[in-house]
Amino acid sequence: MATTGFHVAVVGATGAVGQQMLRTLETKDFPIKKLTLLSSSRSAGTVLKFKDEDIVVMEAKPESFEGVDIALFSAGGNISKLFAKEAVKRGAIVIDNTSAFRMDPEVPLVVPEVNEEDLKSHNGIIANPNCSTIQMVVALEPIRKAYGLDKVIVSTYQAVSGAGAAAIAELHNQTHSIIKGESFNPEILPVKGDKKHYQIAFNAVPQIDKFEENGYTFEEMKMINETKKIMHMPELKVAATCVRLPVETGHSESVYFEVQHESIEVEDIRSLLRDADGVTLQDNPKEQLYPMPAYAVGKSDVFVGRIRKDLDEDKGFHMWVVSDNLLKGAAWNSVQIAESLVKLGLVK
Amino acid sequence: MATTGFHVAVVGATGAVGQQMLRTLETKDFPIKKLTLLSSSRSAGTVLKFKDEDIVVMEAKPESFEGVDIALFSAGGNISKLFAKEAVKRGAIVIDNTSAFRMDPEVPLVVPEVNEEDLKSHNGIIANPNCSTIQMVVALEPIRKAYGLDKVIVSTYQAVSGAGAAAIAELHNQTHSIIKGESFNPEILPVKGDKKHYQIAFNAVPQIDKFEENGYTFEEMKMINETKKIMHMPELKVAATCVRLPVETGHSESVYFEVQHESIEVEDIRSLLRDADGVTLQDNPKEQLYPMPAYAVGKSDVFVGRIRKDLDEDKGFHMWVVSDNLLKGAAWNSVQIAESLVKLGLVK
Repeated sequence: MATTGFHVAVVGATGAVGQQMLRTLETKDFPIKKLTLLSSSRSAGTVLKFKDEDIVVMEAKPESFEGVDIALFSAGGNISKLFAKEAVKRGAIVIDNTSAFRMDPEVPLVVPEVNEEDLKSHNGIIANPNCSTIQMVVALEPIRKAYGLDKVIVSTYQAVSGAGAAAIAELHNQTHSIIKGESFNPEILPVKGDKKHYQIAFNAVPQIDKFEENGYTFEEMKMINETKKIMHMPELKVAATCVRLPVETGHSESVYFEVQHESIEVEDIRSLLRDADGVTLQDNPKEQLYPMPAYAVGKSDVFVGRIRKDLDEDKGFHMWVVSDNLLKGAAWNSVQIAESLVKLGLVK
Repeated sequence: MATTGFHVAVVGATGAVGQQMLRTLETKDFPIKKLTLLSSSRSAGTVLKFKDEDIVVMEAKPESFEGVDIALFSAGGNISKLFAKEAVKRGAIVIDNTSAFRMDPEVPLVVPEVNEEDLKSHNGIIANPNCSTIQMVVALEPIRKAYGLDKVIVSTYQAVSGAGAAAIAELHNQTHSIIKGESFNPEILPVKGDKKHYQIAFNAVPQIDKFEENGYTFEEMKMINETKKIMHMPELKVAATCVRLPVETGHSESVYFEVQHESIEVEDIRSLLRDADGVTLQDNPKEQLYPMPAYAVGKSDVFVGRIRKDLDEDKGFHMWVVSDNLLKGAAWNSVQIAESLVKLGLVK
């Protein structure tokens, strides 16, 4: 731990994303003078390593946030609703990785490559978008800026780690059972709190989060609404179908989009994305170069490939977008927001 | 074997689809008086069971088709190109499951629920469409008939069995290796004859078949071109992104489509598909009822669910289409074509 820097709290430190937050704070060398690790009472007492130091995880309480500069929340929406305002009251800036405040008009929803400026209007809480939204807007923003954007239709291929550590364990255990010819009982996926559970190993499940009244899932509506908010485009047409796959980490997306300018070619889009912040272009069909989740794990960037012009619509294009959902989709985007806050002089 | 019925030949009897053809001929009780099983020289000599009878697989030669009424080909495009016309010359009707003749204007490309009538114009060879195309057009045709169809954008979630028995083995072996923490060397997928091979277990690979010059894969172009041909709609806008998953059998598709009529509602589409030939509607979000590949294996039907109206386009809808790629996508559609030929009196 450094002697200068910030007092950072991580809420939900023992979870799948919390673990990645610790690793990301280490690898990106965020300036930390004190690190407080918090969790529910259930996980309190766990000892976690940070830069070779042992830190005991404490149960989150309102008083836990005394003196904290930046609090990274990732312990579920209910914990955020309970404690985020308590933390703000005590002078912390909260970067919340749950859906609790994302659509609150008072709360900026930020992907630094897209709308870093929105941080300036924060009122103590900043929301980190949904994982599947983040990687898509990082790829779309340079295109919107250069050529305008009218319409997006996305089908996702999402990893189980988005549903937490228990879902990862379920994929492993089921895969084991199926290979050994043993029976098994789905208990977590597709949605922990929902009525029915289905096999995920060697399957594709078209449900992420619960269903809304309109037949879309919450995950699909998150992609639709968050994209419009982050890009400041309430008029943008966005449609989403979200599907869970037997992949541990790494979300993929098949994205169709229509630009506003005419006669744009694939090479124009490639040039933009080759130089875009946070994007690695992997797009060479001749060399079978395209992004894949198994090869994106552990990397911070959003990988884009398979860019093609639609064969019927002059303004239509297709692309394939892959990223580590625990990093750019969660931990890294949160730490990046913290970095932007420091850079913009927004942390006291 | 019955004393009346037809002399049927199965070419490629030892392959993943060939095996399913034998099982389908059994379960659908197709009228067979003689069954000839053929293969390349490599697999000749294998003994296969059909209705408790042992049949020795013979090497395919032009003479093998003497006296054959119906020849079901599924041994790769090269074998079809070599022998289909030889079979026709000897009086057989060929039902070809490869891509060899699909886009030949002289060859009907048939999905019986959609364009059975096209069989009447056959010249000896009938092509069975690509697996991913078949299940999509079965779901789209009732919609087209009732409300017209302008546009289709599909993203696929395809099983490895579409790439043959070696690809199934590769998925199994890799999964084993990864679980045990052992190293492995991808050798088959995504495309056996292509330069590079990638991990398929716990991954998603956006390449099925080789790339064309335009950046689309052959699989994607098959879906685009075959859909137009089967539905007799050269003007239909179709776009496809095809992705291979760690699923053994069962293709899934996220399909966006635009109808021509105005003010159609989800319940209108559901009503149509509830009564459609070859379709099982599984669509009740409240009960988490939707199709999934792991639960569609071994079934003949095309399963449709997740039907939603697009939130921006009055004429736009989304649906999720699943089917057993070895059955309706291959063996069952081929046998169904044979049944239609018999029903229409087209077999001598």
